[in-house]
Amino acid sequence: MITVALAKGALLEESVMRFKKAGLDFSSVLDPNNRQLMIPSSCGRARALLVRNGDVPVYVAFGQAELGIVGYDVLREQQMPVAHLVDLSFGGCHMAVAVKASSSYRCASDLPPHCRVASKFTHCARTFFDDLDLPVELVHLTGSVELGPLTGMAEAIVDLVATGRTLQENGLVAIEELFHSTARLVGNPLALRLDSGPLQDIVEGIRTTNENTSLSA
Amino acid sequence: MITVALAKGALLEESVMRFKKAGLDFSSVLDPNNRQLMIPSSCGRARALLVRNGDVPVYVAFGQAELGIVGYDVLREQQMPVAHLVDLSFGGCHMAVAVKASSSYRCASDLPPHCRVASKFTHCARTFFDDLDLPVELVHLTGSVELGPLTGMAEAIVDLVATGRTLQENGLVAIEELFHSTARLVGNPLALRLDSGPLQDIVEGIRTTNENTSLSA
Repeated sequence: MITVALAKGALLEESVMRFKKAGLDFSSVLDPNNRQLMIPSSCGRARALLVRNGDVPVYVAFGQAELGIVGYDVLREQQMPVAHLVDLSFGGCHMAVAVKASSSYRCASDLPPHCRVASKFTHCARTFFDDLDLPVELVHLTGSVELGPLTGMAEAIVDLVATGRTLQENGLVAIEELFHSTARLVGNPLALRLDSGPLQDIVEGIRTTNENTSLSA
Repeated sequence: MITVALAKGALLEESVMRFKKAGLDFSSVLDPNNRQLMIPSSCGRARALLVRNGDVPVYVAFGQAELGIVGYDVLREQQMPVAHLVDLSFGGCHMAVAVKASSSYRCASDLPPHCRVASKFTHCARTFFDDLDLPVELVHLTGSVELGPLTGMAEAIVDLVATGRTLQENGLVAIEELFHSTARLVGNPLALRLDSGPLQDIVEGIRTTNENTSLSA
């Protein structure tokens, strides 16, 4: 039995599609009435775990799922020991430093030393500011990070930006990009090494579909 | 201008009610079409920040909100420097250790040393198992913790239990309670010390309503 970890939310529909093209149909997770967290594939030889974005690498790293699809942002933040297999090119967004549009900061190094920076991605933010040699005080928030600068708690935020609409609605502007993020197929390293074929078939199926999708895009 | 931090989700409606009875009306946050995160009170002398549960203590501790309402579970987990003002008695639930109903464990000390325990509340869990002198490996998950035992990743979970329905649906059973949790009114210690009256009036208003509610209940 192959188990795959799928992230609830924005990546789910396309993740299901990619596995379907590789022969594993988990379409029933897309049913809005679905309350199950563990869903068998229609062929019966696999099951999907429907989990939060941030939990996909955990289930894959601990081997409870052999494969998973998750955003590169989560992989960068969590640093779990999973094998990065395929860049699936969808779910594109970037991790960015943003400040109030009315501020005078035009790049991250303009920020004053020891200022506060709010983020859900404090590991990514720490690495970025350490590389810049700019000491900042990171404030970990779990949501609505844009309130940080609006309330005066933080001078800047580090957050994911897809369309930029949320920033704009809150009078914020991105001033520097940390990295670009897309959905990735990841795997449990030991499961891949011990695999006698079936896992590799799915990985290859997804890789082929991905190359065709990229070519036709 | 007084700022209060309100938690999105299960506690929101009753939190708005309690502030309303103390003279601050933030009813507009309950409008399902509301997209604003910072909402003025109808009297104009206060505003509410609508944030995630876990972020309430952060905004209060950093002084961006003078008051806030949040679950005791979050306060125990985060250990932020906020003043605990009033136990509001609503939103009751308990933090519990749960295992598969089919397992032989009947209390937490039955768990095998070095087993894995999954939780969103790893600080609470760590303190509990340390006090028990039972070494366990904690796995931090961000949601659907009940999948931990179901997939075999963890022997047990530490999670909030309100009605017990989620546990039951997943074939799990609570075997030990860590603590009972209810909504709490918290405040920024410095703001309370520097207050010339208005904050204390609101705290007293909420305290009085709370005592009347408790008496009539």
